[in-house]
Amino acid sequence: MNDFRSDNTCPPAPAVLARLQDALAAGGSAYADDEITAQTRDSLSRIFQHEVDFFPIFTGTAANALAIAQLSGRFGEVICSDNSHIFLDECGAVEFHSQARLCPVVGRHGKILPEGLPLLVDSQDVHRSKPTVLSLSQSTETGLVYHPDEISHLAGKAKAAGMRVHMDGTRFANAVAFTGASPSDLTWRAGVDVLCLGATKGGAIGAEAVIFFSPDDARDFRRMMKRAGHLGARMWFLSAQIHAWLDGGFWLRAAQHCNAMAAMLGQLLQARGIRPLYSVESNMVFVEMTSGQSRILTDKGFRHYLIKQPDGSQAARLVTSHSTQPAEITALAFAIEECLAVSWATIEPAESRLL
Amino acid sequence: MNDFRSDNTCPPAPAVLARLQDALAAGGSAYADDEITAQTRDSLSRIFQHEVDFFPIFTGTAANALAIAQLSGRFGEVICSDNSHIFLDECGAVEFHSQARLCPVVGRHGKILPEGLPLLVDSQDVHRSKPTVLSLSQSTETGLVYHPDEISHLAGKAKAAGMRVHMDGTRFANAVAFTGASPSDLTWRAGVDVLCLGATKGGAIGAEAVIFFSPDDARDFRRMMKRAGHLGARMWFLSAQIHAWLDGGFWLRAAQHCNAMAAMLGQLLQARGIRPLYSVESNMVFVEMTSGQSRILTDKGFRHYLIKQPDGSQAARLVTSHSTQPAEITALAFAIEECLAVSWATIEPAESRLL
Amino acid sequence: MNDFRSDNTCPPAPAVLARLQDALAAGGSAYADDEITAQTRDSLSRIFQHEVDFFPIFTGTAANALAIAQLSGRFGEVICSDNSHIFLDECGAVEFHSQARLCPVVGRHGKILPEGLPLLVDSQDVHRSKPTVLSLSQSTETGLVYHPDEISHLAGKAKAAGMRVHMDGTRFANAVAFTGASPSDLTWRAGVDVLCLGATKGGAIGAEAVIFFSPDDARDFRRMMKRAGHLGARMWFLSAQIHAWLDGGFWLRAAQHCNAMAAMLGQLLQARGIRPLYSVESNMVFVEMTSGQSRILTDKGFRHYLIKQPDGSQAARLVTSHSTQPAEITALAFAIEECLAVSWATIEPAESRLL
Amino acid sequence: MNDFRSDNTCPPAPAVLARLQDALAAGGSAYADDEITAQTRDSLSRIFQHEVDFFPIFTGTAANALAIAQLSGRFGEVICSDNSHIFLDECGAVEFHSQARLCPVVGRHGKILPEGLPLLVDSQDVHRSKPTVLSLSQSTETGLVYHPDEISHLAGKAKAAGMRVHMDGTRFANAVAFTGASPSDLTWRAGVDVLCLGATKGGAIGAEAVIFFSPDDARDFRRMMKRAGHLGARMWFLSAQIHAWLDGGFWLRAAQHCNAMAAMLGQLLQARGIRPLYSVESNMVFVEMTSGQSRILTDKGFRHYLIKQPDGSQAARLVTSHSTQPAEITALAFAIEECLAVSWATIEPAESRLL
Repeated sequence: MNDFRSDNTCPPAPAVLARLQDALAAGGSAYADDEITAQTRDSLSRIFQHEVDFFPIFTGTAANALAIAQLSGRFGEVICSDNSHIFLDECGAVEFHSQARLCPVVGRHGKILPEGLPLLVDSQDVHRSKPTVLSLSQSTETGLVYHPDEISHLAGKAKAAGMRVHMDGTRFANAVAFTGASPSDLTWRAGVDVLCLGATKGGAIGAEAVIFFSPDDARDFRRMMKRAGHLGARMWFLSAQIHAWLDGGFWLRAAQHCNAMAAMLGQLLQARGIRPLYSVESNMVFVEMTSGQSRILTDKGFRHYLIKQPDGSQAARLVTSHSTQPAEITALAFAIEECLAVSWATIEPAESRLL
Repeated sequence: MNDFRSDNTCPPAPAVLARLQDALAAGGSAYADDEITAQTRDSLSRIFQHEVDFFPIFTGTAANALAIAQLSGRFGEVICSDNSHIFLDECGAVEFHSQARLCPVVGRHGKILPEGLPLLVDSQDVHRSKPTVLSLSQSTETGLVYHPDEISHLAGKAKAAGMRVHMDGTRFANAVAFTGASPSDLTWRAGVDVLCLGATKGGAIGAEAVIFFSPDDARDFRRMMKRAGHLGARMWFLSAQIHAWLDGGFWLRAAQHCNAMAAMLGQLLQARGIRPLYSVESNMVFVEMTSGQSRILTDKGFRHYLIKQPDGSQAARLVTSHSTQPAEITALAFAIEECLAVSWATIEPAESRLL
Repeated sequence: MNDFRSDNTCPPAPAVLARLQDALAAGGSAYADDEITAQTRDSLSRIFQHEVDFFPIFTGTAANALAIAQLSGRFGEVICSDNSHIFLDECGAVEFHSQARLCPVVGRHGKILPEGLPLLVDSQDVHRSKPTVLSLSQSTETGLVYHPDEISHLAGKAKAAGMRVHMDGTRFANAVAFTGASPSDLTWRAGVDVLCLGATKGGAIGAEAVIFFSPDDARDFRRMMKRAGHLGARMWFLSAQIHAWLDGGFWLRAAQHCNAMAAMLGQLLQARGIRPLYSVESNMVFVEMTSGQSRILTDKGFRHYLIKQPDGSQAARLVTSHSTQPAEITALAFAIEECLAVSWATIEPAESRLL
Repeated sequence: MNDFRSDNTCPPAPAVLARLQDALAAGGSAYADDEITAQTRDSLSRIFQHEVDFFPIFTGTAANALAIAQLSGRFGEVICSDNSHIFLDECGAVEFHSQARLCPVVGRHGKILPEGLPLLVDSQDVHRSKPTVLSLSQSTETGLVYHPDEISHLAGKAKAAGMRVHMDGTRFANAVAFTGASPSDLTWRAGVDVLCLGATKGGAIGAEAVIFFSPDDARDFRRMMKRAGHLGARMWFLSAQIHAWLDGGFWLRAAQHCNAMAAMLGQLLQARGIRPLYSVESNMVFVEMTSGQSRILTDKGFRHYLIKQPDGSQAARLVTSHSTQPAEITALAFAIEECLAVSWATIEPAESRLL
């Protein structure tokens, strides 16, 4: 069975696992007060060309929620895309941890546009909360990527209103691979204050890096993690995963591979006259499809999620991972062509959730 | 350097790691909707001789906080020992997740006594919250163990007042090993509603099992996990650790080993006229010590924490783990004897935190 | 200066104040455990032809937030109009007290339409919260009124999805006056579970009645009030205001008067070719206006708020109260006609907030 | 029936009510943006010889909870007496609004002693929260009063640890009357950052003044009030009560009267050989009593609460108010003497709650 459901449904990358062995044998001090965590911080500082503060977290939801809670004040409003993970798929985690309200804005294909931002004012109106954080997803839930100047533009507007900028980087590596821009140009140089860098979908088992670009912003963050139950004993194991994932540039090569596989799929489909819903910029391809067609695709051995899109249409989301092989892509393109030829299908879809 | 700081500062057990390889290669569906999690649930149901609902969690703090939040109502008061981990060492995690108040009671050597319980009434007094959960630590922070009849007695009083019973079982395995009682006699048969069973300190990397003995109690618990950021993609990796730890009875053998090492230390000390502060019932031995003596012990190569005790005295806490060797115990006993002979010491302690 | 800003900017009604004297001289037991509160409960039960549970609250924001928090579960989503007070003007009070998310829906002129409701499903999807409460404003922020069958229809859809129904009745009296329907037909007979009945805007000083139509729903509500700081010593004074306001049908007569004044204004404007933005159904009239025209109207002695409307236009909101006199209405209509004749105005508005 | 239950069970003071008439007829702008509120701020600034920021609140519980929430950071611990109202009688309101933990300390007769304070350290220990606020009750629940130097001493220790100081001044006026010290010496000159000054128990209907002595501390406090539902439309009515209560020094004269009545009772009892439990320093006298004796006292027409004391004994609490007359005191002393002579009484008490 070929699995294109998500980049978190494949096993972790053997290359990452192999690099974990030494750390597992050595152990480390508890509560992120260990050597590997310090080394990972150094690696990240080099990669981002900036002294960073870094905290390993087990889940992406927690990374986003805690990072936003850290930056948002008591009466926060978090501006995010109406198609963002924090708004649609985290069961209110950001609100729970931050007591802020999420304010979804409609963008274009999941990307926030400058003209789509609401009027951002540090209002004194006591009847309303204050916009405090702008949250960008890099890449977006539709697989699109923000370029450095786009981030600068959006972040600039937020900063002008006294807001802070959060980046949900669960697929940040794919954006680096696509744009060819440096990690720094895509983050702090463009105005990003905190990045939640995802290693889980890139090949680690389960580990995300919360990266603050200004040390002041990280004040008491370990306490926030502790109170939320996210500061465990063997945090070094999370750091070790991130370290192994970064080591020798694996993170970027893996993202380049994923992107290439998705691009290949996009091209094969276009060659067959099938136009993906969105520009293929990271590791996801969306193909409009009926429930019945989706069912047929699953029956042919290609697992995927059928997801309702912002414009109301329905699409199969096909996600590539570090383990995707070209032969799978060829077979998938062929299978999609076949199932789209079936127009009468009325069968129920097999799996229709996203992540 | 011999490490007796905690049973979470040693590396995970090689036997557990070895059993993880297959799972790591196979992967699994995301969000705890996977095979290994189902199998682990079955294993736990067998071990506890009762159909259980089971949820893997990355940290013990989160396991306790979420389990208590699940059982506690809107106006909860949680009765716990004044020497409990949830009261002293979790930075308000239980309060944060549950909105309940912790009501610490003074016990004897960290154990709650029936006569120490406050009057438990499901009061209608609108000016006060209601006692909703009794939380017991098995074993306690002092290394003592509750016997089944003690649990029954305490739980019975709680149940009579309409309360629920939570057990912080971060070292539950050690209590099973010490009492020889069955896991079921130590839990649901004695009135425990939810057990947070710790595998982390028993040899896993980082994994705790939240076990509900009544399926109704688990309603919406996955949502609670999600909102707290504790439902990650590769939850199967946590389940796999618990499964590997339980497999073939490793969990109990490891606990028996730890206990035996601690008992051996206790006996060697007593033979030298040094009386541990508390009865040695699990894997911890407490020896009263000045800061200077503690420093000398560290200098001799035996890491440990110096911890203020409920009675105000100061003690070195010596914790054994699955990896502790008899030769280390012999050497440790000898070193303790030597450093206690130094009475004039005024040097600063090396490490003074507990866990 | 004639004040048409809001029905809470006028002084309280002398008739209500007069009826308070006896209560003020007599006093009463603390914390709503008093005679007047019990009598007010009886009065409300008679008016609503149903045994009700009643709690006096000092502010409308608190009444709404606590009532919704009471009905909403742990993972609530509250469906409300995108033009509702709880969404726009309470600084996140509902979210703070309930931990629920507000889900605004676009209606027609501020009224929720059945076809505008999202798909209401008691989803098991762990990544999302559950729709738990439908909140209706009666009358709406645009001054429109729901008829009994409209409420039944909307509430029926909510009930079918396992949801509860809250009514923000800050101007409920005006809706009774407009529809001629009985209070019971507008509430519990149509599926409303809790009504926040506002007396403040109807002539009391500051007092709202939270009315539960099923006693089970009120369980622990006084505790919820207490914890929120809304159970004060002399709650009898709030109850006394509500009692005085209800007494002898003052509440309905005052609402009829307000409505009549607003209707008169609407008719005078229409006679001058000025069409109010919305149908005049309660005590508010909205007239589209530039900032400069608004400023002129203020300068002529008619205070009002200039409010951005859901459709993006800008309108002067003119609110009548128990103290509004016909002569004021005549003068106001004349002044509006004059200032609308000024088209070149570019001056800043005087007061631009809503309530 | 003579009512000595509490100073909030008597009717409000006629002198205060009389002064409210003008305000009630005039009305004012909504949401505390009114003239009377500004005037009251000026009055308070004069009385406290310091520019203050002032916010009227309907209940004492809300005043305390919001004021502490305002000063406490994200990981707060609030040091308070184990016999304080915020710990015993507010149903977790402080914790709810502030997310802080209350840390009760045992004092002497309800007063916190410097030697009773825990070690106050702005710890970096991530496993614990930080002590952020010291809360003092003036006067205490036992009727005792802190003198300026006592406050300075306690506040000094708190300030040295980076903490802020809150004063629950529900009976602050009585403390001014007893000590003869100036309001400023009892507050900001001694290190108090925020005072919750109670007018409710001093003769107003229901109004408390939250007074910040440093304007920075009040930032966003109105938003905090709004979100909690404590910013109502006619806040001017609360301010008017406080203004009327302060006007012409009524507040102090009334407190002097209450204190004198309590002192008279204490002296009459002592003359009969009955020793009050605590020094009589404000408007409360505690007399040790059995449930049966308490019942007899009630039957004789003297209402009161029978309250369990910190030392475990049981006492009748007798509270005087602005309306207490000397003849009542004489009769009460006589009645107490009589009922204490009955030693065999086994009857149930009539009313046994405190406030």
